[in-house]
Amino acid sequence: MLNRRTFATRTLTAGLAAGIAPHLFSANPKVANPEVRLGFIGVGGRGSGLLKTLLEMEDVQFPAICDMREDNLSKAQNFVEESGRPRPEAYQRGPYDFKRLLQRDDLDGVIIATPWRWHIPMSIAALEAGKAVACEVGPANSTEECWDLVRTAEASSTPCMLLENACYRRNMMSLLHIVRQGLLGEIVQCRGGYLHDLRKRIVLGKGTGISLPTGGDYRTRQNQTRNADIYPTHGLGPLAQALNINRGNRFVSLSAHSTKSRGLKSWTQNNLPREHPAQDYNWANGDIVTSIIQCQNGENIILTHDCALPRPKSFDWQIQGTQGIYSELVDGIHIEGRSPGHKWEPFAEYQSEFEHPVWKQYLKIGIRGGHDGADFLELSAFVEALRQKQPVPLDVYDMASWMAIAPLSEQSIAQGNQPVPFPDFTNGKWMNRKPSFALT
Amino acid sequence: MLNRRTFATRTLTAGLAAGIAPHLFSANPKVANPEVRLGFIGVGGRGSGLLKTLLEMEDVQFPAICDMREDNLSKAQNFVEESGRPRPEAYQRGPYDFKRLLQRDDLDGVIIATPWRWHIPMSIAALEAGKAVACEVGPANSTEECWDLVRTAEASSTPCMLLENACYRRNMMSLLHIVRQGLLGEIVQCRGGYLHDLRKRIVLGKGTGISLPTGGDYRTRQNQTRNADIYPTHGLGPLAQALNINRGNRFVSLSAHSTKSRGLKSWTQNNLPREHPAQDYNWANGDIVTSIIQCQNGENIILTHDCALPRPKSFDWQIQGTQGIYSELVDGIHIEGRSPGHKWEPFAEYQSEFEHPVWKQYLKIGIRGGHDGADFLELSAFVEALRQKQPVPLDVYDMASWMAIAPLSEQSIAQGNQPVPFPDFTNGKWMNRKPSFALT
Repeated sequence: MLNRRTFATRTLTAGLAAGIAPHLFSANPKVANPEVRLGFIGVGGRGSGLLKTLLEMEDVQFPAICDMREDNLSKAQNFVEESGRPRPEAYQRGPYDFKRLLQRDDLDGVIIATPWRWHIPMSIAALEAGKAVACEVGPANSTEECWDLVRTAEASSTPCMLLENACYRRNMMSLLHIVRQGLLGEIVQCRGGYLHDLRKRIVLGKGTGISLPTGGDYRTRQNQTRNADIYPTHGLGPLAQALNINRGNRFVSLSAHSTKSRGLKSWTQNNLPREHPAQDYNWANGDIVTSIIQCQNGENIILTHDCALPRPKSFDWQIQGTQGIYSELVDGIHIEGRSPGHKWEPFAEYQSEFEHPVWKQYLKIGIRGGHDGADFLELSAFVEALRQKQPVPLDVYDMASWMAIAPLSEQSIAQGNQPVPFPDFTNGKWMNRKPSFALT
Repeated sequence: MLNRRTFATRTLTAGLAAGIAPHLFSANPKVANPEVRLGFIGVGGRGSGLLKTLLEMEDVQFPAICDMREDNLSKAQNFVEESGRPRPEAYQRGPYDFKRLLQRDDLDGVIIATPWRWHIPMSIAALEAGKAVACEVGPANSTEECWDLVRTAEASSTPCMLLENACYRRNMMSLLHIVRQGLLGEIVQCRGGYLHDLRKRIVLGKGTGISLPTGGDYRTRQNQTRNADIYPTHGLGPLAQALNINRGNRFVSLSAHSTKSRGLKSWTQNNLPREHPAQDYNWANGDIVTSIIQCQNGENIILTHDCALPRPKSFDWQIQGTQGIYSELVDGIHIEGRSPGHKWEPFAEYQSEFEHPVWKQYLKIGIRGGHDGADFLELSAFVEALRQKQPVPLDVYDMASWMAIAPLSEQSIAQGNQPVPFPDFTNGKWMNRKPSFALT
C-alpha cells in the first residue's frame, strides 16, 4: 500500500525520469520494480548528505556501503539503521574494495560520491558489473575515460546518470520552462560557471576524507596539478538543457583561457604561518579559467571557473535570445514586448508565474534535502527511473560531455588557447534524440 | 586675462593631459600655446555634439569645418558664430575635401567625427599634414592601417588621441582610483563590452549623414559585411587603463567567437513591412561577438559586442583582483576585509569615498557636455595637451591597439576561433612607458 506522501513523491519524481509512461499518473501506478536497492560508494560529507536525502524515500533499500574511513562507514550504517532499514554491510578493505561491493547480486544501482578522480573509473566498473550508476559531479581525468564510460554504458545497456543538482534548482527550472515556451525567442548565447571563493577549502582541504601527505585533499591536488576548468558541470548543466545539447544540438569545439595564478598563494601568505607546508605549494591552475564552447546550432556558451579569489558566490547564469535575456547577476529578466523598454524586471515575479510543473508539485508536498531541495529531485529522478525501468535524465552522454570540459579546457590552454574539437559522445545520435529532461 | 571659470577649467583639464608640468598649477599659468585652433572633419550628430562641447571652452577657435552635407555645415557654422567666434570656412567639395582643409596653416589640430571607415585614413592624412588629431571611436579596417597610423604619428612627431569618453566616466575613474590604490589587489581578469540594443539603428541607419543606396548607413554596412567586434573601444578603454596596457603591460593574443546571426533579421521581420528592402539584407555579423585578450602580465579580458538583441544597455564592466571585485551589472563591489563576507556592497558608497581627483574638481566647477560630462573631459584633455605642448592621453598606441580589435577578432573568427597574435604597436616601448592617464 502506498501512503499519501509516498504516492505524491512518486508522482512527482516519475515526472523527472525521461520517457514517462502515462499509467504512472493513474491512481494506482503499477511499477516495474517496486523496491530499489542501492549500494553507496563514498559516504563522506557529500555521500552522507545524499544518503540522508535518499532515506526520505520509501521502498529504497541500502544493502551495502563502501568507504575507506571507519567513522564515515559507521555513521552511514547508523543513519540507515535509524531509518528502520536493515544495517548495511560495510566495505572498507582499501581503495579498491568497491569492486567487491559491485559483485553483490542484490543491488539495482550504486551512488558514487568519492573524490573526483575516482568518479568515472568507478562508474565504468559499476556498469561493467551491471549496476546502474548515479555519480556525483566533478571533472573527467581525460576524454579517453569519457569514451570508455560511454562505450561501457552502451555495451551493458545499463543506466548511468550524472547527479547534477544545478539542473533541478528552482530558478533554473522556471527559466527552462520560460525558454521552452519561447519567451526568450531563439537562444543565441549562454553564460554560466562556478564562481565561488574556495581558497581556504582548496589550500587546506576539507579536513575529512583522504588527505594528502602534505595536507589538503583532492581539490588541493587538482589545483596543484591541472590548469583547467576542474568543476564545469554546475554552471553548464542548466545551460545544456536550455540548448538541448545531445538532443538536437551538440558541443562542437571548445577553447579555454586561463589567467595567472595568484589567489591561492596570496591567501596562503596572508592567512597561514610562514612555516606551514602550504607556503611551498605550486598552483598549476589559473585563478580564472574561461571556456567558450561553440554549439552545432550556432550558439555559444561562456563558462567560467573562478574559485581562487575573494568574491560573492555566483553561477553567472545568463541566457540570451532573440526575444529576451535572463541574468542571475542582476537577478532579472527582460522580455521584449512585455518588460518596459531596455529595463530589467525582477526575476521573482517570473519565478512564480512560470513555476516549472515539477516544482509546483514539489512545493505542495514540501521541499526536503540539501541544496534548496535540488538534491531530492535529482535522486528521485534516478530512483524512479530504476523503479520504472525508464531511461535516466542527465544520461551517460551528458555526463561524458559535461565532465569532458575539464580535459578539453586543459588541452586548449596547454596549446595556447587553440580551439579543440569536442567529441560527439553520442556518435551521431544527437541528431535524432529528443529533449526529455523534466518533460512530462 | 583668464576669468575664474576658464582658469578652473584649465587647471582641471591640465590634469588630464599626460606629463603635467608643475607650473600649470600656479596662479598664473604660462601656457605654451594660449589659443588652440581646431578644424572639424564631420559635423553630423556626433561631430556637432563635440563642437558644442568645445564651444564651452575659451581660447579655442574653429577656422574651418568640413562635411559633405550642406545642412550639417551651416548648422555648425551657426553654432560657432553664435558663440561669438568668427564664422568658420566650409569645406564641402566631396568626400576628399578634408585634404584641402588639412592644407591650411592656421590649424593646430583636427577633430575627426566621420563614419567609422574614414577614421584612421583621415587621421593619417592629418598627421602627414602636421595637424594633431583627436579622432572619434570605432573599428579599424585592418591591422595594416593601424601600423600606418602609428608610423605616421611617430614620423611626424604629431599628437594623435582617441576620443574614448568611456575612460572619463565618473564611475570608471573612481574605479581606476580604487585599482591604483591597490584595493582590489593584483588585477587578474577584466570584463567589458558594448551591450546595447541598436537593432533599429543598425537596420535603418540614423536617417542622417551619407546613406547607403539601399538605406542604412555605415553601421548597417559594417554589420552586413564583417563578422567581428566592430565597436570595441568603449568596453575596453577603462580596462586598458586599469591594466596599464602599452605602459608596462600589453595585449599578447586575441581569440574571438561569434554566435549565429538572428537578431537583426528577426527585428526586421517583426517591425518592417514585407516589401522593405531591409528584408533582403544578409547580416555577416554574429549577434554576439566575444573576444578574449591575453595580456603580457597574465591577466585576460573578456570583451563583448552585443548590439543585435533586445536587452538593457550595459558595458558589462567587471574588474577582479586578489583582494576584490567590481561588477557593473551588480552595481556593486566586494573588497576583502572591508566588505561583509562574500557579499556585494553598493558601489555608490565607494563612488563618493574614492572620487577621482579630476572628478572632484570637475564637480566643483560644474559638469557640462554630453555623455554625463565625459565628452567635456576628453576634449579638455586634448585641448590642454595642445595648449601646453604635452603628450595626449589615450595616444596613438592606445588608438591603434584598441581599434585593432575589430580586424583581429574578424581574423580569429574567420580562422575558426584560432588565437591571433596581437601586434605590439609600441614596438617594445611598452616595457618602459609609465602609466599617465589622469595622473597629476
